[in-house]
Amino acid sequence: SLMLSSQRKIPEFSSFVARTNTCGELRSSHIGQEVTLCGWIQYRRQNIFIVLRDCHGLVQVVIPQDKSAASMKKILCEAPVESVVKVSGTVISRPPGQVNPKMPTGEIEIKVKTAELLNACKKLPFEIKDFVKKTEALRLQYRYLDLRSSQMQYNLRLRSQMVMKMREYLCNLHGFVDIETPTLFKRTPGGAKEFLVPCREPGKFYSLPQSPQQFKQLLMIGGLDRYFQVARCYRDEGSRPDRQPEFTQIDIEMSFVDQTGIQRLIEGLLQYSWPGDKDPIVIPFPSMTFAEALATYGTDKPDTRFGMKIVDTSDIFRNTEIRFLQDALTKPQGTVKAMCVCQGAKYLNRKDIEFIRKFAADHFNQEVLPIFLKANKNWNSPVTKFITEEQRWQLTRLMEIQDEDMVLLTAGQHKKACSLLGKLRLECADLLEMRGVVLRDPTLFSFLWVVDFPLFLPKEENPTELESAHHPFTAPHPSDIHLLYTEPTKVRSQHYDLVLNGSEIGGGSIRIHDAELQHYILAALLKEDVNLLSHLLQALDHGAPPHGGIALGLDRLICLVTGAPNIRDVIAFPKSFRGYDLMSSAPDFVPSEELKHYHIQVSWPTDSE
Amino acid sequence: SLMLSSQRKIPEFSSFVARTNTCGELRSSHIGQEVTLCGWIQYRRQNIFIVLRDCHGLVQVVIPQDKSAASMKKILCEAPVESVVKVSGTVISRPPGQVNPKMPTGEIEIKVKTAELLNACKKLPFEIKDFVKKTEALRLQYRYLDLRSSQMQYNLRLRSQMVMKMREYLCNLHGFVDIETPTLFKRTPGGAKEFLVPCREPGKFYSLPQSPQQFKQLLMIGGLDRYFQVARCYRDEGSRPDRQPEFTQIDIEMSFVDQTGIQRLIEGLLQYSWPGDKDPIVIPFPSMTFAEALATYGTDKPDTRFGMKIVDTSDIFRNTEIRFLQDALTKPQGTVKAMCVCQGAKYLNRKDIEFIRKFAADHFNQEVLPIFLKANKNWNSPVTKFITEEQRWQLTRLMEIQDEDMVLLTAGQHKKACSLLGKLRLECADLLEMRGVVLRDPTLFSFLWVVDFPLFLPKEENPTELESAHHPFTAPHPSDIHLLYTEPTKVRSQHYDLVLNGSEIGGGSIRIHDAELQHYILAALLKEDVNLLSHLLQALDHGAPPHGGIALGLDRLICLVTGAPNIRDVIAFPKSFRGYDLMSSAPDFVPSEELKHYHIQVSWPTDSE
Repeated sequence: SLMLSSQRKIPEFSSFVARTNTCGELRSSHIGQEVTLCGWIQYRRQNIFIVLRDCHGLVQVVIPQDKSAASMKKILCEAPVESVVKVSGTVISRPPGQVNPKMPTGEIEIKVKTAELLNACKKLPFEIKDFVKKTEALRLQYRYLDLRSSQMQYNLRLRSQMVMKMREYLCNLHGFVDIETPTLFKRTPGGAKEFLVPCREPGKFYSLPQSPQQFKQLLMIGGLDRYFQVARCYRDEGSRPDRQPEFTQIDIEMSFVDQTGIQRLIEGLLQYSWPGDKDPIVIPFPSMTFAEALATYGTDKPDTRFGMKIVDTSDIFRNTEIRFLQDALTKPQGTVKAMCVCQGAKYLNRKDIEFIRKFAADHFNQEVLPIFLKANKNWNSPVTKFITEEQRWQLTRLMEIQDEDMVLLTAGQHKKACSLLGKLRLECADLLEMRGVVLRDPTLFSFLWVVDFPLFLPKEENPTELESAHHPFTAPHPSDIHLLYTEPTKVRSQHYDLVLNGSEIGGGSIRIHDAELQHYILAALLKEDVNLLSHLLQALDHGAPPHGGIALGLDRLICLVTGAPNIRDVIAFPKSFRGYDLMSSAPDFVPSEELKHYHIQVSWPTDSE
Repeated sequence: SLMLSSQRKIPEFSSFVARTNTCGELRSSHIGQEVTLCGWIQYRRQNIFIVLRDCHGLVQVVIPQDKSAASMKKILCEAPVESVVKVSGTVISRPPGQVNPKMPTGEIEIKVKTAELLNACKKLPFEIKDFVKKTEALRLQYRYLDLRSSQMQYNLRLRSQMVMKMREYLCNLHGFVDIETPTLFKRTPGGAKEFLVPCREPGKFYSLPQSPQQFKQLLMIGGLDRYFQVARCYRDEGSRPDRQPEFTQIDIEMSFVDQTGIQRLIEGLLQYSWPGDKDPIVIPFPSMTFAEALATYGTDKPDTRFGMKIVDTSDIFRNTEIRFLQDALTKPQGTVKAMCVCQGAKYLNRKDIEFIRKFAADHFNQEVLPIFLKANKNWNSPVTKFITEEQRWQLTRLMEIQDEDMVLLTAGQHKKACSLLGKLRLECADLLEMRGVVLRDPTLFSFLWVVDFPLFLPKEENPTELESAHHPFTAPHPSDIHLLYTEPTKVRSQHYDLVLNGSEIGGGSIRIHDAELQHYILAALLKEDVNLLSHLLQALDHGAPPHGGIALGLDRLICLVTGAPNIRDVIAFPKSFRGYDLMSSAPDFVPSEELKHYHIQVSWPTDSE
């Protein structure tokens, strides 16, 4: 019977198959039982012992040495490592002194009665042992071997279990309907990152959508008022490290909901599905406005596992003689920003400071001023003499500077100065951790809602035009609707991001359900071709309920939960950072004959390109 | 708390949102409660009553008539039908005589205290009432309106719940791991039905695979020994009714399993996930060889809800004077086949017989001889005089012919004659049911395993060459392996199909786990380019366990379970039979500028094509 997850009995891992037990489950309580095991030969010792492995663990098998078992001994001793065998025998206790406390099955071993070689293994490209380092290209090329590692087994099983619990929470506890939406769809406005799929009609293409955004809204309009889907999404960004051309999101949409409703739902979802081998998470999650996140952490995805917050010190330096601070403050929106790097004076050296200054110059074209506060209270900085006693005192109090801390000062426009210090905050954290300071506890999961984003941003290539900060279906903040017609850049949105340990793991919004407002934003403000979205605009006019939703990036979330170094480690068959499947060498050339079905031909680049 | 599905409490359908209850759940036990409901105005009567609808049902709302509530009355009376409103009020019992026993909420109504118009509905293209007949094109164009029908709501919810229970069975009860496999992959040999996806490298394409076949096998080789996935698959077959370019299969693979293991797993899966509002299904399912299915039902997917089996009557007619039977029997593999159409003499008329004979001539170029057995035992047939008393007696006994039955006789090669009668069996069933005979009980679900298929078939275009009857990874039947090298067409496979009410709803096989055997079949027998599969052949050599699996066609299965007339009725956003999304008009033309990213151009057909 199926029980609450905390009380749930272990699934039957050996139903319907040739084995009676898994290799990893046998304990001294099984002694005396006749068992049949199937697994891979992990290693063999002195032709007496074999360690047999399956995805549940390892078990020691004793090879019989008596003459009557010669053929069985031959099978077990001649099969190469990683061959697949089936053995039947009795679970016996290990002789005194041979118990292995490091091995979960270390109290027992199997006295074999019959053995069968199911498949012999040829020479391997690398050893299937966790400690043998492999290049990632080799791991991806032989992915089926890499999957045998205990880490990959753990990652994929944890992913499956966590998604299963999410489904239980959404479907069984809260009445959500799991609905599959198409992936062969129409291209969306501005969908330059969408893969195209030619069809058999000349010149016509499907598009692989980046998310089921339109469909989830249409489902709400269709009266399916609680939708979710573990949705495959596609994004063609060319080569990008840590991005996959296809990825998975937990896609959710609800009718008659507000921002708080979605947030409480997601907190409950994560709490319910959180792996049992981690500390439980605390809900509700803290919340921060976009403005506060930028001012305090210099980013819209703050890592709140550690402090080192950015502080506005403009008032302290109003009358400074330090030239670059002075210059900045005389400009209309000039500010002076400071960040206290805890124990920076103790752990960071001259080379680190050089790196920091170069980073600021290269990436932000900004000057950064490091100030060291030594234990003896003597300020050590190139500009120490220009900092007054009063300024020193104010700075120390405002920023709670401790002995051996370092302060980084920069000046300029609010956003630029904060962004720079936000980046330096993470760079300094890396440097400090390399020196042994523990800033970011790997067992800590620090969730944060970031809210009140701007609805529009000036377009990068033409700042007089607007683009959606997230997507054009995001509803404006109710208090700011009047600004849509006067100062649209000041309109805050009802968008919310969920941040975990400094990574964005989800984002969503309350959507526009009013056709007129949606049309105004698309046509008048964003200058989009509304014809591409006429079906959605029409749908909004046919009784669309208020609705909102969210999408969680599953690959990223599982990556953070498992502590995997890369999202490729939580995906069974990932693409390389160039978008290749290194195992099958996809993508591949296609005979031009096959392209004819689709009325396309390749435009081969000429030499001049 | 989550409980066994039979004891599970109803999910909270109103958590996190503005409503306190759904429209469909209120009963007399709720009388006196203050509730808030959100829903669509289904209809309004005399400006006194509104019937409010959400996906859980209908409820009657009483519009207050007192002057103090004038503004509220205005809102509720002026909002067009299908507008979305929020009402708060008290659940009261209906006045005596006004209880509606046909309506689940018919004992109560809502006395409104506050009302809010959430969104007004513009003029609709059709009424959202189940009884208003719509063309399918219109339903697909306004899919978001069609989804509001109770039938679509039922179909999609049943689908979600059935899949959820399948997941519980596989994950929680039997330790399967849900693993997502890529859809951007390499084309497979003979993959002419695979959609192509151009990438940013000139001339290179991904392919959208027809199934995760290779990945599931590679997962077994990777030691993930129980895999499942609700997998999106793609098949480009051009225009085909009742097929979708993207579809969903329950994809399963296990290591160390045999055919029986997979069959018992699937029987348990379907029993566990079977909807509670249907009769429980009985397991194990009966099994039939391919040869028996062909001989008895003339098809590899027999509808076993009714009899009318095909019988070989060659021996009876060995000395017949009926010319076309005689002609057939003199040929080397000639047979005479007969089928008894129960009550055919009573219900089928001359026109039906003409139709049957024309069908046989048009589709099979075959002659069919109908024989009517009247109540008075006088044979009525053009050839009655050529049928001896002895033949009549033998036929009656062999086929258990009853009064008013009709017998159809045909002659020719075994396979062709059986196939014809198999088709006529279904045609006659349609005819009889049109006349009111109940042959196929719509509440009956008749499952059947079909096994022992041939491994190879002669290629249609060139019968001296072989092709796989299913796919090239199917293992041969252990008893027939020696025939691979002598008479490959006689080799039976370890493939199995699951048939429900005459539709194939799943198929699978034990796979080849031996690299040498796989290579021999691909290269020597099928003449395939093994380079396209070198990664799989290599993987088999690196310790591949014996394994097998199955895939269930989810769309077809849900279609049969719900009794929907078409698979499009169990898919939220299906494509039309020509592969169009009629709502967004996908596929669509793409500016040639955007094609440049992918180094392709359209080959527009010339006039001569």
